Amino acid sequence: MSFQVRALYDFDGEPGTAEMSISSGETLTVTRTDVGEGWWEGVNKNGKSGLFPEAYVEKISANSGGPPQIPAPLLTPTPNLMDDWGSSAQPQPVAANDNDGWDDDWDEDPYSEIQGNAHHQHEQLYSNETNHNLNPRGDADNFSEASFGGIDNKGTVTKKSLNRFSTFVKSGGESYILGTLKVNVDESRIIRIVKLDESTFAWPAITPSNQYTVLVTSPKKETKLKGLKSFIAYQLTPSFNNIQVSRRYKHFDWLHERLCEKFSLVAVPPLPDKQISGRYEEHFIEHRRVQLQEFVNWVCKHPILSKCDVWQHFITCTDEKLWKQGKRAAERDPLQGANFCLCIEAPDKNLLQSWVDERMEININFIHNLDAAVKNLQATATDQCRKYSTAFKKEFCKIGESFYSLGTAIESAEKAKPPDLATGIKRIGTAYFDIGKIYEDQPKLDWEPLADKLYVYRGITGAFPDIFAIHRGAQQKRKECEKINMPPGQLNEVRKRTDTVTYAIFAELNHFKCEREIDLKITMRNYLKEQINFYKKIVEKLEDTLQFFD
Amino acid sequence: MSFQVRALYDFDGEPGTAEMSISSGETLTVTRTDVGEGWWEGVNKNGKSGLFPEAYVEKISANSGGPPQIPAPLLTPTPNLMDDWGSSAQPQPVAANDNDGWDDDWDEDPYSEIQGNAHHQHEQLYSNETNHNLNPRGDADNFSEASFGGIDNKGTVTKKSLNRFSTFVKSGGESYILGTLKVNVDESRIIRIVKLDESTFAWPAITPSNQYTVLVTSPKKETKLKGLKSFIAYQLTPSFNNIQVSRRYKHFDWLHERLCEKFSLVAVPPLPDKQISGRYEEHFIEHRRVQLQEFVNWVCKHPILSKCDVWQHFITCTDEKLWKQGKRAAERDPLQGANFCLCIEAPDKNLLQSWVDERMEININFIHNLDAAVKNLQATATDQCRKYSTAFKKEFCKIGESFYSLGTAIESAEKAKPPDLATGIKRIGTAYFDIGKIYEDQPKLDWEPLADKLYVYRGITGAFPDIFAIHRGAQQKRKECEKINMPPGQLNEVRKRTDTVTYAIFAELNHFKCEREIDLKITMRNYLKEQINFYKKIVEKLEDTLQFFD
Repeated sequence: MSFQVRALYDFDGEPGTAEMSISSGETLTVTRTDVGEGWWEGVNKNGKSGLFPEAYVEKISANSGGPPQIPAPLLTPTPNLMDDWGSSAQPQPVAANDNDGWDDDWDEDPYSEIQGNAHHQHEQLYSNETNHNLNPRGDADNFSEASFGGIDNKGTVTKKSLNRFSTFVKSGGESYILGTLKVNVDESRIIRIVKLDESTFAWPAITPSNQYTVLVTSPKKETKLKGLKSFIAYQLTPSFNNIQVSRRYKHFDWLHERLCEKFSLVAVPPLPDKQISGRYEEHFIEHRRVQLQEFVNWVCKHPILSKCDVWQHFITCTDEKLWKQGKRAAERDPLQGANFCLCIEAPDKNLLQSWVDERMEININFIHNLDAAVKNLQATATDQCRKYSTAFKKEFCKIGESFYSLGTAIESAEKAKPPDLATGIKRIGTAYFDIGKIYEDQPKLDWEPLADKLYVYRGITGAFPDIFAIHRGAQQKRKECEKINMPPGQLNEVRKRTDTVTYAIFAELNHFKCEREIDLKITMRNYLKEQINFYKKIVEKLEDTLQFFD
Repeated sequence: MSFQVRALYDFDGEPGTAEMSISSGETLTVTRTDVGEGWWEGVNKNGKSGLFPEAYVEKISANSGGPPQIPAPLLTPTPNLMDDWGSSAQPQPVAANDNDGWDDDWDEDPYSEIQGNAHHQHEQLYSNETNHNLNPRGDADNFSEASFGGIDNKGTVTKKSLNRFSTFVKSGGESYILGTLKVNVDESRIIRIVKLDESTFAWPAITPSNQYTVLVTSPKKETKLKGLKSFIAYQLTPSFNNIQVSRRYKHFDWLHERLCEKFSLVAVPPLPDKQISGRYEEHFIEHRRVQLQEFVNWVCKHPILSKCDVWQHFITCTDEKLWKQGKRAAERDPLQGANFCLCIEAPDKNLLQSWVDERMEININFIHNLDAAVKNLQATATDQCRKYSTAFKKEFCKIGESFYSLGTAIESAEKAKPPDLATGIKRIGTAYFDIGKIYEDQPKLDWEPLADKLYVYRGITGAFPDIFAIHRGAQQKRKECEKINMPPGQLNEVRKRTDTVTYAIFAELNHFKCEREIDLKITMRNYLKEQINFYKKIVEKLEDTLQFFD
């Protein structure tokens, strides 16, 4: 089942391999998609066949170039001033094809307007309009971004990574380790990893004066296009300025994508799941608010995320023009992925390889175990949520009905006058009905918050394997450099940069450790308190009923 | 599939019907057992075919007359001094054939040695060795028992009942109403129904000085035949003499049969179910003890049952010879079934038919409703018993495991020192394991006692329909007598006896009402108290765990 794709970028195939060079705009016929590792096989218009990166092409949809597909039959997407993202760019075909129905709202989101040509833009990337923007010295031409495929190695010849589309390479780890990206980072923006003791390294702590929270409140249905389009907007109020901003799920989604791309060494907390059905249902919306609050809380407590530009922009920007500028700036941030390490200043001490290996192994195992345990408890919590309001409630209703009907039967005997046995037994029945209701109402107090918290942890534990992969990639790259005849000064730089990656990962692991110690303690305490209250409520209900028999 | 039976009694077939007369001792070949209403079809040795009552014949087993069948392979039943019932009589063939495996012990029980020839015995029925025995004036020959089939109506011609084997006729109701059984009852043994108000009639109350309890304790495994046979004996200690007697389930079973036969107008409480498997399992034995205690309690509180000879004999007799005499006396008691009404003196006021009909209807409905409700709640209670120790326990184990494994996972991170988060979360895990255990242990404190109590009520509500049937039969018989040309004096006697039956049923209903008002109140209170304690235990367990997070 072959299909046609259009090349989005130039790609220089490695001579002597199965790779094939492609040029941006060229049409190709894909013949195999199961090559693996991000590669596709195809044929170009000259009949030449070869492999190229899947990510470099976009599918040509049946009506490509025609009007955009409209997912929801009632609504016609039209650029509108009220639409924050409403540039008139056509929805990117890839996005349209990949749109498998998750869209939080009913409009097409032209998020990716820039992605397609980011490699070829040379305009001024940063404005001074927002205070927190990176302000690199040197102009944009100094950014000599290494293409993913060919490495510009300025005299140093290294083998390419086995998998050019590994997490490591994709995150820009290779180019960072090899020092191919030269960016001067403003001194004020340097992140200095702190050595707490011989084996503990940490991100610079958030000073008490810089601590803040952001409250996510009042999810409300908003409309645009005179009511034709409706969506839910969540209100965010940072504690440092008390100015409310209104954000939709798709904005969170965009933010999340930016954070993940930029901070590939940071375990970015997850967003709530995308969900189509029942989107405007009250409980779903409120629950999503709670989950967004969890996300926001985690970001606020993270020393790197909480200070970063895109986040600050997200929680503070109220002006539409500035919003768009900030959006573009974030999307064109050159210090993404492993290159973010250019902003990091690690302790000036080479790490002992065996020690690093040992600690990494412990942590990899730990994260692996934690991930499984968190998933398990989350599944249990979700299961309990469901059962409380279904099976367990039903049990109590059944008990209630049984007692109640006994009361009714006794009542049918002659001469039963209340307050009597029949009434008492019926009271037991209603007590159990009430307990059934208590069960139904309970999960939102204990199991649901627990499940929400564990959802965040699942996101965190799920993010670490990619972080570990970058570490592995960096180590491997360093070893490669050690094997070849690299000038000692240059090799030292490679080693230092590799260590920086390691230090950063240790700092991130340390942050996670500190966070969870506080956070899980609070979570468990709250959970237990609510469980205790729950059983106390049942006791109370039964004690009320017992009075009737005393 | 024909088989042979032996006629136990004479039966005079109704001329002009399909019925066939049979004579005691005669051998018949049964050709149909599905005639219904207690009838079988068979052929006699002369080749004559017809219907006869199933109850009048006994199956002739293959090895009838040979050694008794031995149900358990290891044991050989041998008459033994230690066997309370150990007369050397052959097990009655009917009993041997009907023995479908319920037998509480492994020996044959020759309970029914007398049943087969009771009609033909004319020996002295009563000894003076036990104080409470009936001591009828007039000798045994005065007992002119009406044969079930032919009615000895001494000049009064009435139609036979439509169903000659109805509860009414079988209970001897017909012969009682028609006054065919003449027994002089000693004045001291007359039961006088008390009129409490215009519409409330009661059994004579048990005077405080006559109130007593009987404790059922220490079920223990006893053996006889040098350990070859083993059985469980329950110890009964009446409060009025403090002398312990040892009784086996089969003795209870015999007693129960006697009580049901004699007191057909009394709702005799049920015995625990017969059960074959796991008979010597500790929990089963203890549970049976509890259920026997329920039975005993109910009897002790019943004004008629608690005073009756067979019961007194059962709870006091310690001498083997007296025991056998009492047993025979009970089995040959002429004042059984409806004829027990001969001992009853009802208020000397004719009951208004319409009033009786209305009250009976109310009560029939009530018992019907109550029966359904009791069955329902008992099913729920039994279901909860099961779920507490299976499904619910499992839920808590699963929760426990989920928390525990999260604790274990966190522990696998470096530098976790107790008391720490990991230990705390593991403690939550163990708390839920403990709660699972609390669930498992709980039913015996609340649901099981409730189920046991409801079991008794099921027995009671299940007994009433037969009582109502006797009432209906008596009413019908009275109407029949009213239609024919019966002398007024005789008719008055019929009416009076019919009213006596009605008064007795009202007294029994009243007793049930008074009993349940006290009894169910206590039951519900105890149940609620245990449920409250149960949930409090869970609260306590969780509170202990919460301390770890404070």
